[in-house]
Amino acid sequence: MEHMRRNAPDVPVILDAKRGDIGSTAEQYALEAFERYGADAVTLSPFMGFDSVAPYLKHEGKGAFLLCRTSNPGGSDLQGQRLADVDGQPFLYEHVARLAQGPWNLNGQLGLVVGATYPAEIERVRELAPTVPLLIPGVGAQGGDAVATVRAGWRPDAPIIVNSSRAICYASSGEDFAEAARNAARATRDALEAAKP
Amino acid sequence: MEHMRRNAPDVPVILDAKRGDIGSTAEQYALEAFERYGADAVTLSPFMGFDSVAPYLKHEGKGAFLLCRTSNPGGSDLQGQRLADVDGQPFLYEHVARLAQGPWNLNGQLGLVVGATYPAEIERVRELAPTVPLLIPGVGAQGGDAVATVRAGWRPDAPIIVNSSRAICYASSGEDFAEAARNAARATRDALEAAKP
Repeated sequence: MEHMRRNAPDVPVILDAKRGDIGSTAEQYALEAFERYGADAVTLSPFMGFDSVAPYLKHEGKGAFLLCRTSNPGGSDLQGQRLADVDGQPFLYEHVARLAQGPWNLNGQLGLVVGATYPAEIERVRELAPTVPLLIPGVGAQGGDAVATVRAGWRPDAPIIVNSSRAICYASSGEDFAEAARNAARATRDALEAAKP
Repeated sequence: MEHMRRNAPDVPVILDAKRGDIGSTAEQYALEAFERYGADAVTLSPFMGFDSVAPYLKHEGKGAFLLCRTSNPGGSDLQGQRLADVDGQPFLYEHVARLAQGPWNLNGQLGLVVGATYPAEIERVRELAPTVPLLIPGVGAQGGDAVATVRAGWRPDAPIIVNSSRAICYASSGEDFAEAARNAARATRDALEAAKP
C-alpha cells in the first residue's frame, strides 16, 4: 500500500477481499480494509444480507462493491437463479443490482462487480443500476472483450472500473517483466478508451 | 494454531474465513487454510458457485462448510428467496443444502453452516442433507437455544458442531476470565449433551 500511495497517489485502491460476515465481524473487517490497509473500497459478497454490508457504509468517503454477476464458470450456479417471489422474477444477480442501486445504497457508496465475460449481463445490470460504479474484472486472462465491456457498461454519468490483473502482472516472466507489464497496462487502457462511443 | 495443537490436539480447528472467490484464487486460499495455517476445515460462501468450492476438495482429509442459512438478521435477505426454476421452488438455502448433500459433495468433505437462531430451518436442512455435518453458530451471544438446536440437527449418524464464541471468550473481563470461559464452555457442552434424545 505504501508503495502504491507513493508512486500512484491518484489511483484508487480497491481491496478485492470478497468479505461477507455478520455485522460485528463486518465492523472489524471494515476497520481492517479502510484504516489498517487504507484502501478506498472493498469487494463484498451479498450472500449474508444487508447487515453484512451496512458496517462498511459508516466509513465516509469509502466504497463497497457487491459481487453481482461474477466472471467465473460457476458464477451462474446461484447468481443465475430466478427468484420466484420478487416482482418480475429477476435473476438473483438482477435482484442484487436493484438492491445496490436502491434500498441498500444508504449513502451512495455502493458499486457492483460484474464480469467482463458476460457483456449482455453488464448491459442488464446497467439498466437496473443506472448510476452505480461497476467494477468489471475478466478483461485479460479471463478472456473478456474490452470493447463490448465498455459499450455495455460505461455511460457518461455512470462510471466503470475495468480490472485486468493476471494479464498485466504476468505479462512476462523474463527480465523485461516491468516493461512488459507497463505495455500490457497501456494497451488495455488504450483499448478501453477507444471503445467509448 | 500452535497453542491449540499443543493444548488440545484432538480438537478439530475450523477456519471461519467465509472465503468465496474464483478457482485460481480459491486454490491459493485452500493452501493458506490447510497448509499455512494447518486448519482441518474452512467455511466458504457458495455465492460464486461450484468452481469457487472445488479447489478445497482436492485436499484429502480436510473439510469445507458452505454458508447455508446464517444466523444474522439479514441472513434471509438472499438465502430466504425462493428459486423459481428449481423443482419444488426451494429457498436458496434449501438449494444450497441439496448441493452440499449431492452434486457438489465430490468426496464427502462438505458440511453446511446453519444458524442456531433458526431451529426450524436446521430441521429442514437436516431433511435435505441427512448426513453432512452441520456447523451451527449462534448458541450464546446470538441467542440460539441449545436444546432446540440439538433436537433439530443432531442424528446418531449425522454430526453437528455447535459453536459458541463470544459467550465463552468474553465470559468475563476480570481477573477470572480463564475460569469464567472454562465454566461457560463446560455449561454449553453439558446443555448440548443433555439435549440428545
